Amino acid sequence: MNKQIIFKNRPIGYPNETTWNLETTPIPELKEGEVLIQHHYISLDPAMRGWMNDSKSYIEPVAIDDVMRSGSIGIVIKSNNHPTYKVGDCLTGWGGVQQYVATDGTGWVKVDDTIAPMPLFISTLGMPGMTAYFGIHEVGKVKKGDIVLVSGAAGAVGSVVGQIAKIRGCTVIGIAGGKDKCDYLINELGFDAAIDYKSEDINQALKEKCPKGIDIYFDNVGGDILDAALAKIRMHARIVICGAISQYNNKVRVKGPSNYLNLLFNRGVMQGMVVMDYAKDYGKAAQEMGMWIAEGKLKSKEDIYTGIENFRDTYDRLFSGDKKGKLILKVIED
Amino acid sequence: MNKQIIFKNRPIGYPNETTWNLETTPIPELKEGEVLIQHHYISLDPAMRGWMNDSKSYIEPVAIDDVMRSGSIGIVIKSNNHPTYKVGDCLTGWGGVQQYVATDGTGWVKVDDTIAPMPLFISTLGMPGMTAYFGIHEVGKVKKGDIVLVSGAAGAVGSVVGQIAKIRGCTVIGIAGGKDKCDYLINELGFDAAIDYKSEDINQALKEKCPKGIDIYFDNVGGDILDAALAKIRMHARIVICGAISQYNNKVRVKGPSNYLNLLFNRGVMQGMVVMDYAKDYGKAAQEMGMWIAEGKLKSKEDIYTGIENFRDTYDRLFSGDKKGKLILKVIED
Repeated sequence: MNKQIIFKNRPIGYPNETTWNLETTPIPELKEGEVLIQHHYISLDPAMRGWMNDSKSYIEPVAIDDVMRSGSIGIVIKSNNHPTYKVGDCLTGWGGVQQYVATDGTGWVKVDDTIAPMPLFISTLGMPGMTAYFGIHEVGKVKKGDIVLVSGAAGAVGSVVGQIAKIRGCTVIGIAGGKDKCDYLINELGFDAAIDYKSEDINQALKEKCPKGIDIYFDNVGGDILDAALAKIRMHARIVICGAISQYNNKVRVKGPSNYLNLLFNRGVMQGMVVMDYAKDYGKAAQEMGMWIAEGKLKSKEDIYTGIENFRDTYDRLFSGDKKGKLILKVIED
Repeated sequence: MNKQIIFKNRPIGYPNETTWNLETTPIPELKEGEVLIQHHYISLDPAMRGWMNDSKSYIEPVAIDDVMRSGSIGIVIKSNNHPTYKVGDCLTGWGGVQQYVATDGTGWVKVDDTIAPMPLFISTLGMPGMTAYFGIHEVGKVKKGDIVLVSGAAGAVGSVVGQIAKIRGCTVIGIAGGKDKCDYLINELGFDAAIDYKSEDINQALKEKCPKGIDIYFDNVGGDILDAALAKIRMHARIVICGAISQYNNKVRVKGPSNYLNLLFNRGVMQGMVVMDYAKDYGKAAQEMGMWIAEGKLKSKEDIYTGIENFRDTYDRLFSGDKKGKLILKVIED
């Protein structure tokens, strides 16, 4: 049988016990040319919150009664004459929060799970890593000597952004919640400084830790932190708008950045990005990041929970911040 | 004697009767290598409000007891061995709100006032025109077929932005205050549509007049109109942040654009600009715009008031909107 998390009700504000249902359905029959993938791991990402809203966005909202959308990785366990994929292949794609998925392979990518553990392919070598890579290079236009500020810095995207910026010769300041995460940024990831937004005044901390201002701000959180960062931008700064986790569960309007006029004074650029736009270059990015990982220059940390029935508890960790690194749910049962 | 508007007190919110003083001082003596310029016209611009704030910006604040900063144009009436300029030359620069100014020529440009009336050189062939030209080309990256929305559309910058966009083959929608200005945009300047923000609901009007969305929004006003425009951007839209006249006199914080996350969904760019950055190319721009004016493709409208003692009343028109085209004060006395 196939355990699935079904999307039942669009949340207003934060999701609750009526948002999803755990349901059990038969494992799907394969049509001609399809494969059956047994999911090992599901990716949990803040973007999930946005996909549940019935509003214009970069992707269709999840439909009511559909399987909850998510990135995933698993192994082909059956093929009905699929032209390319065969039993034993490891595939990553958008399988959703369920244990099995049947597909003709559209949108799936085969990866070599002998060179790296499976979770890495939905973490640093997957969407979050690609988001970091293309965000800091293509939108942030990172260059040696830049002062780079990143929020959500201990998370799946932010931790990679900061490490890539270090590799590129920048000064890197990370914003994260709690002393443990801040210590991790400095001691394990090599950031130059860290700001604990839970215990420090963000404006004061930026004054102390970015006294010369900021060339790049990579924003995963929005709200007051975006505003504080805008107040500190240098000439020709680049603000990468990757997400706004502080605003996703709002019942009221999103908080706009009051300090946006600093873009004018400093000829700054604030630009939004969606990782899918760079799909054709994922291979090149994965190759370069894989090399950095092998050389020990780039560390990837996954925080893995177990059991599809624990989906909602695990999802909560995205927003409570009670996690370190990429949040992943193991859905295969022993 | 030299009548001068002296900056006396930094305004909180809107300037009042204590902000400036009209003072009369002797016409300055020339040092070796200086010229004396008799001002004919003073340029009034919304940016003046920002220059009075004691805060970080793209330019130093006006100092207390200094002549109020402004663009200006006038004629050299005396020279103390200036190497280049001679009596009778027409110069434009930052002379401030006064009748005479002594200078070594730094920052001044000689123009040919036989080919166009003097006010044109502080209007469409001056800063506002340059702002429009470089804003729409270099930051807006205008191209044929774009849907271009511009606020402050009947003003010195906005009217030129819209006309250049028409010349470039765009669909142009202007936002202005009042039926007269809207009629002017459509009937005299050839805009495709106009929105009267004083009598129309801006969100509803954008839905009707930009049903396909917006490729470029050229923002002179900020506030609710910026927010409404962001809600309508198309993929890869460019938002040119040129000014925020609705926010300049705020006693409370600037209103940030709540809809900035549409930059993310639509991979949009919001970029600030300051015209001085393009100074080396002013000549080329003036040449092209001069040609358009001669061909009747680009109309320049100046709204000229008389008498330096009327400076404050004239300044008020910048913010009340009680003007059509570039606001100019004639300070030479007959």
